[in-house]
Amino acid sequence: MVSTLRSTMNGTGNPGSQSALRKLNEQRIVETLTSGPATQAELARQTGLSTATVSNIVKVLQDANVVATEPTTSSGRRALRVRLNSNSAVAVGIDFGRRHLRVVLANLAYEVLAEESMSLPLGHRADVSISAAVEVLDRLLLEAGVRREDIVGVGAGIPGPIDHRSGTVVQGAILPEWVGFHILARLEDRLALPVFVDNDANLGALSEVTWGPHSGVGNLVFVKIGSGIGAGLILNGAPFYGHVGITGEIGHATIAEHGLVCRCGNRGCLETVASTTIMGELLGRGEPEPLGPDEIVRRARAGSAAALRVLDDAGLAVGRALAAVANLINPEVIVIGGPLADLGEQLLDPIRRGLLRHAVPVIGETTALTMSALGARAEVLGAAALVFQNADIAHHA
Amino acid sequence: MVSTLRSTMNGTGNPGSQSALRKLNEQRIVETLTSGPATQAELARQTGLSTATVSNIVKVLQDANVVATEPTTSSGRRALRVRLNSNSAVAVGIDFGRRHLRVVLANLAYEVLAEESMSLPLGHRADVSISAAVEVLDRLLLEAGVRREDIVGVGAGIPGPIDHRSGTVVQGAILPEWVGFHILARLEDRLALPVFVDNDANLGALSEVTWGPHSGVGNLVFVKIGSGIGAGLILNGAPFYGHVGITGEIGHATIAEHGLVCRCGNRGCLETVASTTIMGELLGRGEPEPLGPDEIVRRARAGSAAALRVLDDAGLAVGRALAAVANLINPEVIVIGGPLADLGEQLLDPIRRGLLRHAVPVIGETTALTMSALGARAEVLGAAALVFQNADIAHHA
Repeated sequence: MVSTLRSTMNGTGNPGSQSALRKLNEQRIVETLTSGPATQAELARQTGLSTATVSNIVKVLQDANVVATEPTTSSGRRALRVRLNSNSAVAVGIDFGRRHLRVVLANLAYEVLAEESMSLPLGHRADVSISAAVEVLDRLLLEAGVRREDIVGVGAGIPGPIDHRSGTVVQGAILPEWVGFHILARLEDRLALPVFVDNDANLGALSEVTWGPHSGVGNLVFVKIGSGIGAGLILNGAPFYGHVGITGEIGHATIAEHGLVCRCGNRGCLETVASTTIMGELLGRGEPEPLGPDEIVRRARAGSAAALRVLDDAGLAVGRALAAVANLINPEVIVIGGPLADLGEQLLDPIRRGLLRHAVPVIGETTALTMSALGARAEVLGAAALVFQNADIAHHA
Repeated sequence: MVSTLRSTMNGTGNPGSQSALRKLNEQRIVETLTSGPATQAELARQTGLSTATVSNIVKVLQDANVVATEPTTSSGRRALRVRLNSNSAVAVGIDFGRRHLRVVLANLAYEVLAEESMSLPLGHRADVSISAAVEVLDRLLLEAGVRREDIVGVGAGIPGPIDHRSGTVVQGAILPEWVGFHILARLEDRLALPVFVDNDANLGALSEVTWGPHSGVGNLVFVKIGSGIGAGLILNGAPFYGHVGITGEIGHATIAEHGLVCRCGNRGCLETVASTTIMGELLGRGEPEPLGPDEIVRRARAGSAAALRVLDDAGLAVGRALAAVANLINPEVIVIGGPLADLGEQLLDPIRRGLLRHAVPVIGETTALTMSALGARAEVLGAAALVFQNADIAHHA
């Protein structure tokens, strides 16, 4: 993740520092307030922080207009009730896809203020996406009545691994038009706002533990099955980026030693047997063109034997790759996302069989497997969450 | 890891708490002092802590007799020099093997004060190991002149995954005599000391970033190739345990879909093609009994074509499994340990070829692969390090 170059690393690189601790505690209080107003005493109880610490942080947040306070009584005693000025801090999420662009405005309470998505031609240049995103953002700000100075940052997701060291998309990515492109610098130039960039599968994982139903989960894997296959990891409660920022590349697990040649240069990778691209090609033989994901979903729902068989084979292969993932990092939950997520059990069932067949029994039995409830919005919501996790909320104005 | 039930979890579960922070800062100062005495100002500079924090912690450590101070001058000004009373806090490391027992006494400066190893019959009962460990420990304390009250804790490693929820070794482990056995409770009963238990591969990983040459490495994988194959993970600078405590089970990655049946109940697992057990069986055909690891090493060094071919096939399979590991978590370093580690390049070479063949190119190129420099002592030294990482050094007496 490129954003780590400027903010996450500062936080996690020196986790014992006083400033990192203060930021963490600020985030905790803001998170607690997203479920409703609370007195300072309640905040102390719910966060485990001392009342003195809570009181100091509330003051800082109040000065930044992030929270408002009002006198109240609690058990007959005078107290201070704190509530979030949710719209005082707004995050922009942008999801750059191969054929689409999606932009969302979200507030501190994790409410969507405005959103828009549009189609883009396959193979469009990176600059085309960025210009379109800038235009859409201006429109959404007007529509939602959000002032530019209330934006704390912009999160951007792209469907390709990003090398931390250079801040660019690596060779062999699903978006060849973006390879070597320094998306962070380009977006900051165009938007004049703090920008945080991440891979789409990492953002899907982040959305599941922020917007999604898995907010208490410390170890979660999000798998995006699309024209590429990638995973995002939440480990010990935080996105995990490894040594150079390229993690979750399960699409390139070897499934068939002498299988098809993959765009990464290897053979028989999971992507060559389970991506929506290969499924569409297999099902589209004899038809004018390969099937898109929507048509695969339609045929499977209509009970097409060929579609069900292709999904079964793909699901088993994904499950086998996920067994190796589960054996290694023992997640609590694996969430499946991407354009086939609407299939539900029709896709989950073969994935589950593959997982149970290949995982160490105790791991297979203790790993929950589920479809994403966020659908096509997972990545863009994760991009907005990335901003709240990394931007300096109390000091943006 | 069972120890997390009592200490690590308290630390990492609430990383923003004041007490967790104080403990982390204490550990930092102790670690800094292991490279020699320093003034309080130097400690502040080297740890990044404020001089007030350093001064408070030094006082606490002095009260606990962990450090001693003496007046000195620095740049003409009066200062306080702090040095470690290394032997005031001693850790016991115990490595329980299938056929061996190894015990070590180590001090805060990561110096070995005494150690002993012994052979045990294959298939011996867990209680036999524990009784032997208690006897050896008494002997070592006498030999090194260490008082029982200076022991801050006992770390124990066993070659099998431990389920956090029950604190017992899980079914299918390499040590069937230990399955379901509550090692932590039994050791605490016998020793009347704080005990921390972990899997042997996890301890190997910990030893590489504490005793070994990789102390600055945040993301490291230690692979033990023995009669079983397992990995230990250091992620973001700390041992990683996942949801129920069973991580790094790469020995059960499926390599040959229709291969041999594995003790875990699956087929074609890495262990069925690359453990020292299967190598010894393959090379021992027509001989009175299977070859042990030492004999495999001897024949490979003598240039036996069969031994070299078996090592080549095993190494390629290990490399292929490690490619999936590297693609997923992108470690900086992978260290190979276990009884074949003395082979060096003879084993590393095929592992490297397998890794490069199957990893995403940028990941294969950026992952360092090396043999462990700690040899057969990796696990027992990691067990001692586990104590210093988890025990309450400043308050043990």
